[in-house]
Order: sequence, then C-alpha cells, then structure tokens
Amino acid sequence: MNVVVRNIHRAETNTIETLGRLGAATVHEAQGRTGLMQPYLRPIYTGARVVGSAVTVLGHPGDNWMIHVAAEVVKPGDVLIVAVSSENTDGMFGELLATSLRARGARGLVLEAGCRDVREITEMNFPVWSRAVSAKGTVKATIGSVNVPVVAGGVHVVPGDVIVGDDDGVVVVPRRQAGAVMQAGLEREQKEAASRKRLAAGELGLDIYGMRPQLAAKGLKYVDGPIDWPSGDVDGI
Amino acid sequence: MNVVVRNIHRAETNTIETLGRLGAATVHEAQGRTGLMQPYLRPIYTGARVVGSAVTVLGHPGDNWMIHVAAEVVKPGDVLIVAVSSENTDGMFGELLATSLRARGARGLVLEAGCRDVREITEMNFPVWSRAVSAKGTVKATIGSVNVPVVAGGVHVVPGDVIVGDDDGVVVVPRRQAGAVMQAGLEREQKEAASRKRLAAGELGLDIYGMRPQLAAKGLKYVDGPIDWPSGDVDGI
Amino acid sequence: MNVVVRNIHRAETNTIETLGRLGAATVHEAQGRTGLMQPYLRPIYTGARVVGSAVTVLGHPGDNWMIHVAAEVVKPGDVLIVAVSSENTDGMFGELLATSLRARGARGLVLEAGCRDVREITEMNFPVWSRAVSAKGTVKATIGSVNVPVVAGGVHVVPGDVIVGDDDGVVVVPRRQAGAVMQAGLEREQKEAASRKRLAAGELGLDIYGMRPQLAAKGLKYVDGPIDWPSGDVDGI
Amino acid sequence: MNVVVRNIHRAETNTIETLGRLGAATVHEAQGRTGLMQPYLRPIYTGARVVGSAVTVLGHPGDNWMIHVAAEVVKPGDVLIVAVSSENTDGMFGELLATSLRARGARGLVLEAGCRDVREITEMNFPVWSRAVSAKGTVKATIGSVNVPVVAGGVHVVPGDVIVGDDDGVVVVPRRQAGAVMQAGLEREQKEAASRKRLAAGELGLDIYGMRPQLAAKGLKYVDGPIDWPSGDVDGI
Amino acid sequence: MNVVVRNIHRAETNTIETLGRLGAATVHEAQGRTGLMQPYLRPIYTGARVVGSAVTVLGHPGDNWMIHVAAEVVKPGDVLIVAVSSENTDGMFGELLATSLRARGARGLVLEAGCRDVREITEMNFPVWSRAVSAKGTVKATIGSVNVPVVAGGVHVVPGDVIVGDDDGVVVVPRRQAGAVMQAGLEREQKEAASRKRLAAGELGLDIYGMRPQLAAKGLKYVDGPIDWPSGDVDGI
Amino acid sequence: MNVVVRNIHRAETNTIETLGRLGAATVHEAQGRTGLMQPYLRPIYTGARVVGSAVTVLGHPGDNWMIHVAAEVVKPGDVLIVAVSSENTDGMFGELLATSLRARGARGLVLEAGCRDVREITEMNFPVWSRAVSAKGTVKATIGSVNVPVVAGGVHVVPGDVIVGDDDGVVVVPRRQAGAVMQAGLEREQKEAASRKRLAAGELGLDIYGMRPQLAAKGLKYVDGPIDWPSGDVDGI
Repeated sequence: MNVVVRNIHRAETNTIETLGRLGAATVHEAQGRTGLMQPYLRPIYTGARVVGSAVTVLGHPGDNWMIHVAAEVVKPGDVLIVAVSSENTDGMFGELLATSLRARGARGLVLEAGCRDVREITEMNFPVWSRAVSAKGTVKATIGSVNVPVVAGGVHVVPGDVIVGDDDGVVVVPRRQAGAVMQAGLEREQKEAASRKRLAAGELGLDIYGMRPQLAAKGLKYVDGPIDWPSGDVDGI
Repeated sequence: MNVVVRNIHRAETNTIETLGRLGAATVHEAQGRTGLMQPYLRPIYTGARVVGSAVTVLGHPGDNWMIHVAAEVVKPGDVLIVAVSSENTDGMFGELLATSLRARGARGLVLEAGCRDVREITEMNFPVWSRAVSAKGTVKATIGSVNVPVVAGGVHVVPGDVIVGDDDGVVVVPRRQAGAVMQAGLEREQKEAASRKRLAAGELGLDIYGMRPQLAAKGLKYVDGPIDWPSGDVDGI
Repeated sequence: MNVVVRNIHRAETNTIETLGRLGAATVHEAQGRTGLMQPYLRPIYTGARVVGSAVTVLGHPGDNWMIHVAAEVVKPGDVLIVAVSSENTDGMFGELLATSLRARGARGLVLEAGCRDVREITEMNFPVWSRAVSAKGTVKATIGSVNVPVVAGGVHVVPGDVIVGDDDGVVVVPRRQAGAVMQAGLEREQKEAASRKRLAAGELGLDIYGMRPQLAAKGLKYVDGPIDWPSGDVDGI
Repeated sequence: MNVVVRNIHRAETNTIETLGRLGAATVHEAQGRTGLMQPYLRPIYTGARVVGSAVTVLGHPGDNWMIHVAAEVVKPGDVLIVAVSSENTDGMFGELLATSLRARGARGLVLEAGCRDVREITEMNFPVWSRAVSAKGTVKATIGSVNVPVVAGGVHVVPGDVIVGDDDGVVVVPRRQAGAVMQAGLEREQKEAASRKRLAAGELGLDIYGMRPQLAAKGLKYVDGPIDWPSGDVDGI
Repeated sequence: MNVVVRNIHRAETNTIETLGRLGAATVHEAQGRTGLMQPYLRPIYTGARVVGSAVTVLGHPGDNWMIHVAAEVVKPGDVLIVAVSSENTDGMFGELLATSLRARGARGLVLEAGCRDVREITEMNFPVWSRAVSAKGTVKATIGSVNVPVVAGGVHVVPGDVIVGDDDGVVVVPRRQAGAVMQAGLEREQKEAASRKRLAAGELGLDIYGMRPQLAAKGLKYVDGPIDWPSGDVDGI
Repeated sequence: MNVVVRNIHRAETNTIETLGRLGAATVHEAQGRTGLMQPYLRPIYTGARVVGSAVTVLGHPGDNWMIHVAAEVVKPGDVLIVAVSSENTDGMFGELLATSLRARGARGLVLEAGCRDVREITEMNFPVWSRAVSAKGTVKATIGSVNVPVVAGGVHVVPGDVIVGDDDGVVVVPRRQAGAVMQAGLEREQKEAASRKRLAAGELGLDIYGMRPQLAAKGLKYVDGPIDWPSGDVDGI
C-alpha cells in the first residue's frame, strides 16, 4: 500500500510558467473558483511565489522520512506537496532538506505541518507554504507514499497537477485542464485591466458591471439619511 | 429590511486626525478600555495605519456585492467596515475594489472575512485589516445593507463612528464621544511621556505608580532565595 | 501562596551565549527534542532573537501587575517568561514596560497573552514572543508570583532555565543540563555542516543517512510509472 | 461609565412565550435571518430551552462580580446575557449563582465565558449557554455594567430584547420588533407544516418550491451516468 | 462545470452492511489507517450510526440549494456527503430536508457545515455528522454539483464509496476496495476478540504483542523508584 | 533519557477519596485556584467522574506504545495522565487498552490526544478525558517515558499527584499538599452549604458577601431607568 512512483506526467512548460505569472487569485477564478487550498496554509515569508508540477508526499505526523524519499524523484521545476495523515504542526521541513531539494531542482514546497529554520530558508529564497512555524523535530519511523493522489489544504492533488502559490495562497490546477485554465486566466487578466482603468478613474463597479437593475430587482432600497443612530453604548446616561 | 443609507454624520476632522495620531492602544485606553475589535483582525501588512469615519457594510459569506454598493456612498476620509452574517474567510476584497475605493477617497477597510491580492494592495499602501488572507473568489447574489449599525470584530459600529487602526488592532470611537476621547487621549499621552522618561532612567513602575503598599495589602510576600528548584524533568535519574 | 523570589541561580554566561548562537531548532534537537514551547507563541517581528536566564511571572488574564513586580528582580541578561492562569489575549505588555525592562537589563520577553505597541517595541528592537497582538488594556488588581516554576507554551519553566528564542520558536533548557545540551548542540552543528555540503552537491539524504535498507525492510515499494491518474475532478464529463 | 440600570422595558408576555414556543431556528428565519448568536455558544445540556427578557451584564475576563450585581435587578421571566470584555473561558457561573438567580426568578443565562458545576446546574434544569465548561474560579475585583447594550456571541443585545435559546443556539429579537417577528414566525410555522407533509410523502423540494426553472436558468446540467470515477487512491497499482 | 450525475455505481449490499456492523474504527484500521474524516465532524447525537453509499453534494457557504437537488437522485441506502467550497458553519440542513431525505430512502448525512433542528432530527433518529450546530438559515442562490468527487473532512470521496459513521467519526471506503476491506476488518475483529479476553484477564499488551524486545532495542530503561520528585510548584517555600 | 519508573509515592487513600467526593471545582478553589487543566480536555461521556493517583505517560503524536508500557506499572486506584510531545488528535486510546487498564486496576485516563471506541468505553463506564474523539489509529514506533513529570492540559503533573476529574474538568493536586487542600475543600464545602441556603431563600450575594461598600468604592453607579435604548438595528427606517 506504500509506494513510490518514480515518474509522473507534467503539463507543458509554457502553460506552467504562464499560470505562475497570472498568480493564485486569477488562476483560481479562471478555473471556476475551485482548487484553492484552505487559507491556513501561509507562506513563511512575504513575497514567496512559486509555480511547478506537483510531486506529492503522504507522510505521518511528526515523521519527515518520506520527504527524503521524494527528493530522489524530484525533477527541476517540481513543487512538493506534503500531506500528513492527521493534523500536526511539527517542524517536518528545515534548511537541510531545503538545501537538498534545491540541489535537485525543486522550486518550493507546500506542507500540511510545520516548517523550521525559517530565517535560513528565507535567505535561500526557497518558497514554503505551511500550517505553522515550529522548531519541533521529527522522527523517521513510519513509511508513507510518494506520487500518489493526496488531499492537502482540503484539495485533492494528483501528481503532475500544476501548483501556483503566492501571498494569496496555493491553487491546484488539474494537469489536463491546465491549458484551458491558462486561456481563461489570460482573458480574465485583460478584462480586469480594462476594469481597473475605469475604476481608477472613479467610475463605479455598479455602473461598469451593470449591477443596478439586479440590486433593485432583489429589493435593495435607498434612503437619504443621515439617520441619527445613537452613537456610543452608554450615550445618554 | 435591506437598505442603503446615502448620508451619515461624521465627527470633526480635527478630532479624527488627532485620534489617528494617538493610535489604537492609546485611544482604546482613553475611552475606558472599550471599543477594541477582537485581535483576529490583523493588518495585511506591517505598518498599516488608518483613521476615518465608518461607512458600514453588512454582507454575506462568500458574497462581496455590497462593497460595490458602498463604494458609491463613500466620501473622502471614510473607512469601510465590512461585517458578514456568519464567520467566513473567503477573499471578499481584492485589488480592483481597492482601486475603486481609493479613487472614491476611502482611506482603508476592515473586513470580517478574507482579503486577496495582498501584494498589490500592499504596493498601493491601502490599509486593510482582515480575518484571513485568501484567494477564494466570491459571488454577487445576495443583498445586504450599507450604513446601518453592524457588529464587527465583536464591536457594535454605528455609521460615522471614528475608526482608528494600526499594528495593534482596530478601535471604534462612538462619534459623539470622539471629542472627549481625544481629550483623554492627549492627557494620557502626556502622562505616559513623563513615565517613559523615568522608566528609561531605570526607575521602577512599583515606585512611579506607588504600587508597593497595595501589593503588600494584597498579601504579596518576598523571599530572598535562590531556591534550589530542580531544573530539568529527568534530572537526577 | 503568592510570592516573589528575589534571587535565582543562573547558568554560566558562556554556555548561555553559545546556546543562543546555536538557535532554537538546534538546541531543541540537542536536548532530545524536548523543551520547545508550542508554536502559537510567535515573535512580534521577523528576525527577533534572544537568549537569557528565565525570570518567571505568574499572572492573571487581563492583569499585568506582576510584570511591574518582576522588573525589580530582573538582572542584565534575563528573559521574562510570563504565564497566565487561563488562556487570554489581552495586551499585557507594551512599550512602557519594554522601556522599563530594557533599562533594567532584560533582553526579551515571552508572553502567554497579547502584546501591544508592537511598532514601538519593534523599533526598540526588544524581542517579544506572544500568543497574540492586541491593544486591549489590562488592570492591576490581582497578585500572582515571580520566580516560581510556571507552565508557559506547554513547557514547565523553572527560574534560571536558559531561554532560546528566534523565528522558529522558544526553547527552554533546564539550567543544570545547559552545559550538556550546549555540547550536544555543538556536535550537531558540525555534523549538519558536513551533511549540508553533501546535500548541496546533490547527494541524497537516502544515501548520506543510509536509509534505503530500512525503507525496504518496512516494505516500501517502487514503481516506475507514470500512472495515468485522472487529473481534475470533473475531467471526462 | 460603569452603571447599573435598575429597570428595563420588556416585551409583552404573550409575545415572549410564543417566540419561545417557535424556537430559535424559526424565530431567526422569521426576522430575516438576523440576530443569531455565533454557534460557539452551546447549551450545557441537551434539551436546554429558554425564552425571556434580556438583562445584560458587561464583565471582565476571570471576574464574575457583576453577575451578583445583576441578580438584584432580575425580574421573574428574565434571561441574563453576560458579555465579557475579552475572550475568556473561565468558569464565571456556577451552582451557587444559579441558585440565586433561580430564587430571583431568572429563567436562564447566556455566557461569553465558561460555566462550572454543570452536573448540579443540569439537575436544577437551569438552562445555560456558554463558550466552554471550566472549573476555573474567578475573582471579584473589577466593576462593569448591568443593563446597558452589549455585544454577545457577535450580536448587539439591548436590555429587554427577547432571548430565545434551544439546542440550535440563541437568537436575539429586538424588543420593538417582537410582535412582528412573532407574526412572521407563526406564518412560517404554518407554511412549514404544509411542506413537511408533502416532503414526508416523498414529494421533492424541487417541485414543491418550484426550483427547476431557476436551476436550469443558472446552467445546471444533468447527465445520466454512472461515471466510472476511479475509486480509491491507489487503485490500479 | 456544474453537473448532476443521476446514477452511480454502488458496492454490494452485503459488503456495505458488514462494514457498518464493524464500525468506523475497525474499518479505518482494516484499510491501513486511511480514509478517516477529520475529527471536527461530530454526530449531532450520541449513538448515531450509519452505513451506506455516498451521494456527494458540492455546495457553497450559506447556500443549501444543492441538497434539494440531491434528494431527487438519492436511492434507499444512500448517505449524503455535503462538501462546501469554503469553511462555514451555517445551518445548511434541518428537519424539513431530513424529512425529505428519509422519505426518499437516505440513511444519513455528513455535512461540512452546520446542522439545525437538532432536537427534531434526533427524535427522527436520522444520523447527521456536522462541523457545528447552528440555527443560521441559508439561501438558494448559487448552483454546485451532485455526484462528482469531493473533498469532505479532508478525505476525497467518490460517489458510491461506502460511508461508515458512528460515535468515533466517519470513514470512507473506496467502492472497489470495499470487499477487501471487509475481509481485513473481519479478521481484525477476530484477532481483537482474542486479545480482549487475555487483556481482561490481566495479561499485558507488552506480553501478548511481544513488545519487550523492541522496547529494549530502542533503549527504554527501567528504574525502580520511587523518585522524590518535588510535588507542588511552591512546595518548600 | 527515556525511562520507566516502576514505583511512585501516593497520597493517603482517605485524602484521595475525599478530594474525589469534593469534585473538581471545589478542589480547584481550595488550592487557591491553581492546578486546573485547560478546558479543551473534556470527558467522553456526561457524568464521568474519577479520583486517583497520577501515573504519567509521555508519548508522541500518533503513537500509543507507552500506554502499553504504563499498564504494567499501574496499581489499583491510579489514573493515567497521557501527555504528547506535540498537539495531536489521533485516537491513541481505545476499548482494548481500556479493558487492559481496568483489569490492572486503573480508574480512568486523561489524554492530550484523541479517544476512540467511545461507545464501548462509555458502556464500560471507564472515565476518559480527551482533547478529541477520533477513530484515527496509531503506530508503536517511538519510545517515551512513564512516571516522569509531564505537562498535560497546561499543568505540570508529577507522578503520584492526585487527579480529580468530573464534568467540570480535571484538577491536579500536588501530592504533598493533598491533605491541606482536602481540609480547605471541606471548609469551603461547609461555607457554600450555608450560602446556598440563603441564596435559595432569595437573599442576594451582594448582602451575604457584603459587596455593596466595595462596589460603591470602585465607583459603581445606579440609575433607575428604564432607558429608551433603541431596540433593533434598523428600527426607525
């Protein structure tokens, strides 16, 4: 039941890089508001950014053995996704493993547990998203799997899916949908550029997006005010 | 029941700006340790700072429609307070809305949900306090209200109340008490400057604030020590 | 039952400083993966770092009286550990107390509650680890103790224990074990330097640490792949 | 600023009792899905149920003094709402206070902190909703207020508002809206009885509520299936 | 992208019923300690128990529309698994929907949000596992999907997987592995019965499972004691 | 560093039993409001109650090996306290271990992790306090210690301390203070009986405890009211 799959399918390089440039929020919208990992996964430093192909790791709480195993199958451009069999914050990933992964070509790591040596890893500019920062050390006692589908951050991740991470979070793009999502993202980017210009000039979203009739249909009422709401809990005593 | 109030009362400009200069901690103390929003509301970047008049928004989880509605009634110097009808972390506020609000004169936003595009909003230097950072997109399906009293961060906020936010959190000053709170804050500021000088010179709070008799009256005892507490859990084995 | 112990035993200066240089993660490993405070205790600014002898404070939620009492017994090189009798996030520590503690020689503070004035304390470069940031003010109404054993961050801390804090968290080294832990830490440091060089050159942990036979013995299997996992939840519809 | 208001307005007895019979979920819906306290407030025993007029208490973490003060102004039929100035779980309410409140006619209590003596209070059949169960004792050191507006469970509660609590949570009905909410609740009750009968007979909500056209308009598609989703993470290895 | 799949594959009835009799803990162990939903999903009443085929629902926070849609495709013996696109506690499921589902043959429901009408649903003996209990009502505004793979409680659930729920939690058995898991579960049940008898007679697990040599090999040491640990924090003062 | 201490000191039987009769809340108060474990430790069934001598276990997340080891050193009347080296909810304790512990004379267990087989353990009437209920199985891979001081629920527990658990939580009484705490508890019990009678007769705590002068001295003001607080957020629109 515990298995390491040496080789995985990956999306096209060009698609991957474009998805990375678009960023997590745009990509998440472009694929119909799906695939976003839960927001407890935070970058260990501001400005962290990554895109790459998912190499998945299924490990156990307090045990980082399988990350060593995964280091062997990583190819340049990959991003490790480390799922843990139950909720845990131990520091499963530190500077030595970051050194090893970088040497093997990995671009970053997403971790359902804790990260340590965050000062050193930040200096290396190796992007990591984790549930916590913790110096807690781990053992190497129980085996898991590498490159099988896992659930991380509430999302089902299949090896080779495209991972897009930045300050806003981590999005998973199913490999075979990567091209279509990239197209939708590029279109969204253009549309947003147009909206941005109008909004910056002071136009209202209400007008740009034509929202007024819908709001009226839903029953939204306007009153002029001001209303003399009592201000302050003990006002009047 | 869903209503937009176009106009609100606001406190005096001078009072507002002075409260902003005093900062959240001093203002919170000056009004009798009340009005502080709960500490889960954090700035999206270090050094965020805002003061202004509350324009309130009552929305729903995963739905940011009413922020667009609020953009129309914002006046220069206002701060949006976005309450949500149940706990949620979806990214209800992003860079396009920030662009729109800034264009209309808003100074910042406090949000009982998630914020996205945090890199771009940080670059804009548009201060936001939120419950979470999340790329999760939202719909525009259910109407709410603008400029009615709301509860945000555990505090009752009335439109036109003064909002003071910085790294320490967000404080709400009831509009009609703003002048009195400003006075109390200025006095507190002076007193603290005097204490700071004495403390920096090595004097003790025990002496400056005359605490010794009270502590003795409460029964606090001093012993010289050192006591040979066993140090270490397995010491002696 | 409420007592202030004026004097405590401390570890040797050289040992203390060396432990500080090694940092929290290495020290925690060196003493057998014990003594780490729970990861909810976070530094108020990136890059905070401290080492020193524990002066302990046992206080109550919303009451910072005993920190003033502790300021009198602090000696240069000490670190305050402030435990609270029940979970609380109120801002028990601010810039005035930081000024006082620095004037008395304290190097930093670890706090089972909230910290405020974080901008000012960051500018002072006075390192603080806390459970939360909160402007919430506190009273001075109930006495506690100073320099008795306390539990903070889930760790039993005895006055005079060595406290090592950095971005990775806070570790407590029992005073009488400080020398032995320092030795183990120095050895670990050397071993890690050797591993780092090999890992940076692309060697695998699997080989450096001789893990392959153990993994095989546990039953880990390798398959070549790639496997055609369906990518995308609705792929194929 | 700390004040006890001896007398409050109350809603009509008949309205109050009817709202209690309707229960929290129906009343919450009947007033437009507003007024529900957050779900962390749970009854200390299954089957707890209360309705009455809010007597409000604003206290401090770890300090239950003001509940004693409130006991004097309680009238038969009242429900205490105890807000705390910051998040806390200490056992602010126990069997002695329950005995006192019952003797004065109070029907129950909602508490933004911890409850203790839960076995005894359950045997008394005195309904309590709290954030936690905790034996942690409290002091009587800091004064607060009684019968001023407070925020509890995320809802603004004004003295005399109608409180409806049961296994589903606690709802606050503004006093002057109580009659209208009661009417809406009774209508809702009737409509639900009709729906219940049809649903129990196997009719679908899709048909009873006429949802099919809207779903189609939104773009919902039906496929016959079954689809051969791969079942099991490692299926096929 | 939003789709309802009318028909699904199901496991064999006999296998399903046997898995239900074995219960969540045994089934979870029997499939190699996988498939357990996270423990925040709790039954709304003690003694809740269910087994059946998963009909999956993907909905949105505060919106229960798709449960109505799912009611049409449910077959007798099914269990609904309701995933939500972001974390939410609103009361998406109540007594009317329970009445409808029961009438259509559903045996129970697992819900990544809140449940309401818990007294009525308990009286119906309709088992529900949820993240929270909340009276909060929901809208019917945004469509989702039925019978597509979802992630619920941190587990990937495919329509037709076998769901086993009881007081210990909810386990998902991939449909095609159901037979093998049942066999492993029956064997485990027998082995445990033998162990139980020996343990009840006072034999030690150390001897029954032959653990002593392994513990010695790992370096576990025994000392006779008793050790005079100082008992009590302030003992000796 | 990993050690099993076979024998421990225990308090006197009579003292232990009396502390158990007094219950957690009274004992916690009697020892000066100290020693209470944090309230996240909850009994797995209503009405659970235990008193006994602490046999301590220090284990690791997801690993219950050391409970088997502890079963050998348990004596009739003991209560196991299981600490875990980092936060975890895995089901480390189930019905087989409960059977074993009962056969060896243990009276109950307090567990910083998850419990499973809660139906069976409830039927056995074997009291357990845990952080969670979870069917998640565990391994037996890493050794820990038995009968060394541990921190559990935020309290330092020394082997042989008296553990008092009931619906209100778990209190730790240092062994050498057990007699004094018992005396203080018996006195408190008597005083409370007197207060209870007066409170039940409708007397106020304000008078029984003589609180009125202190409240006045602190500045509490009374006003007659009623005050016409606006009731309802949108009242008046």
